Amino acid sequence: MKLRVYYEDTDSLGMVYHANYLKFIERARSEAFFALAKSPEGANFYFVVRSMNLKFARSAKLGDLLETRSRLIEMRSASFSLAQEIFLGETLIFSAIVELAHIKNGKPAAIAPETKERLSAVFGE
Amino acid sequence: MKLRVYYEDTDSLGMVYHANYLKFIERARSEAFFALAKSPEGANFYFVVRSMNLKFARSAKLGDLLETRSRLIEMRSASFSLAQEIFLGETLIFSAIVELAHIKNGKPAAIAPETKERLSAVFGE
Amino acid sequence: MKLRVYYEDTDSLGMVYHANYLKFIERARSEAFFALAKSPEGANFYFVVRSMNLKFARSAKLGDLLETRSRLIEMRSASFSLAQEIFLGETLIFSAIVELAHIKNGKPAAIAPETKERLSAVFGE
Amino acid sequence: MKLRVYYEDTDSLGMVYHANYLKFIERARSEAFFALAKSPEGANFYFVVRSMNLKFARSAKLGDLLETRSRLIEMRSASFSLAQEIFLGETLIFSAIVELAHIKNGKPAAIAPETKERLSAVFGE
Repeated sequence: MKLRVYYEDTDSLGMVYHANYLKFIERARSEAFFALAKSPEGANFYFVVRSMNLKFARSAKLGDLLETRSRLIEMRSASFSLAQEIFLGETLIFSAIVELAHIKNGKPAAIAPETKERLSAVFGE
Repeated sequence: MKLRVYYEDTDSLGMVYHANYLKFIERARSEAFFALAKSPEGANFYFVVRSMNLKFARSAKLGDLLETRSRLIEMRSASFSLAQEIFLGETLIFSAIVELAHIKNGKPAAIAPETKERLSAVFGE
Repeated sequence: MKLRVYYEDTDSLGMVYHANYLKFIERARSEAFFALAKSPEGANFYFVVRSMNLKFARSAKLGDLLETRSRLIEMRSASFSLAQEIFLGETLIFSAIVELAHIKNGKPAAIAPETKERLSAVFGE
Repeated sequence: MKLRVYYEDTDSLGMVYHANYLKFIERARSEAFFALAKSPEGANFYFVVRSMNLKFARSAKLGDLLETRSRLIEMRSASFSLAQEIFLGETLIFSAIVELAHIKNGKPAAIAPETKERLSAVFGE
């Protein structure tokens, strides 16, 4: 997924404000979830972020065209983990390990086998 | 209401990103609505912005301590208008005329006389 | 310009937070300015928003694919005005009249004839 | 440091959007840095986030009055680490380990002994 850095993403140090990288990788996850289900919320289940490990390797600036790459690194019964990276060309800007918990009817719940398969298909094995 | 400019509010031009002044005046309105009702959403009614006229007079920067001033300028049956200004000391940074529509059970609805009185009390006559 | 509504854009009323429409139309302007000049800031000039008239016609929600449309409505010596609209399919969500002032070396300055021509070309006459 | 949850902080799941907790703890750091130096950028040095470990324990919602608590956990020659937590009353909402690198004249640089002392004073031992 490609995304552009706009003024809203930068701060007065002239670079992308650090918290906004979390928005960028969330957009990538949402596009994947939109592909899984037409209506992610209407479908009565969703995934919430439980933990994250983040590394800020380099800075991106206004106008940069970034690329996010996401891959599944662990599937558990009621949660899974993704490695998500942001690149500017071949330069790594930001990397994250994101643990996502499955919520159904407002509570943590086991992920259905079909959903597991589809997550694996969307985010790679 | 006093508020501080943080990195999140600025952009790469070194000043507050223009759309963030709308967040600042919304915080001031929300504090007023929180004072009107303990639970603004639970109360089953709220106000949505229908239109705005904005003037960007000067820029604010990181660390500035701004002040918002809000006053009622017109009360109508199902909506009302506020003048909201943001100052840095005595310097006007930003001014807005904000038209707010009353929504009850998901639809525009007349504002109850008690609510009108309380709005007048909170935002001046 | 097409843009997707992500979680970051919504608020607890379930719709796009009103100030975020300003981000959407700013992205459209920035793409146009990026097309005008490879490095909009390095080029030593830029445009700042001086005033805005906004109408919030309908709400957009998570996952919606919106489209922005921008056109030049008035060119002046040191500023110009755009009409910018956001549509969901054929439904008008939001419309704005945006007055932009030309800043060169930190001060308001006349817009060069070539820049006027290019703005007219990018935003239509 | 106390902070209120406004509409801008929430998303369509009705809770605080996860990336916004990073804004909250950054505000707490900035207040501390503002206290260290009147003009943090003018002073020609600042701290950038190099890495973060985040745990999202509970959700906060519109109107909640949150409190951030920050304490120094490790001081190194050119960087230091803080533990930062967000509470709603006595309930832990969010916790982070934040590694901050010292940047002077655009490059990583050793932290002066006086600055170390002042950081220790501001963030606890």
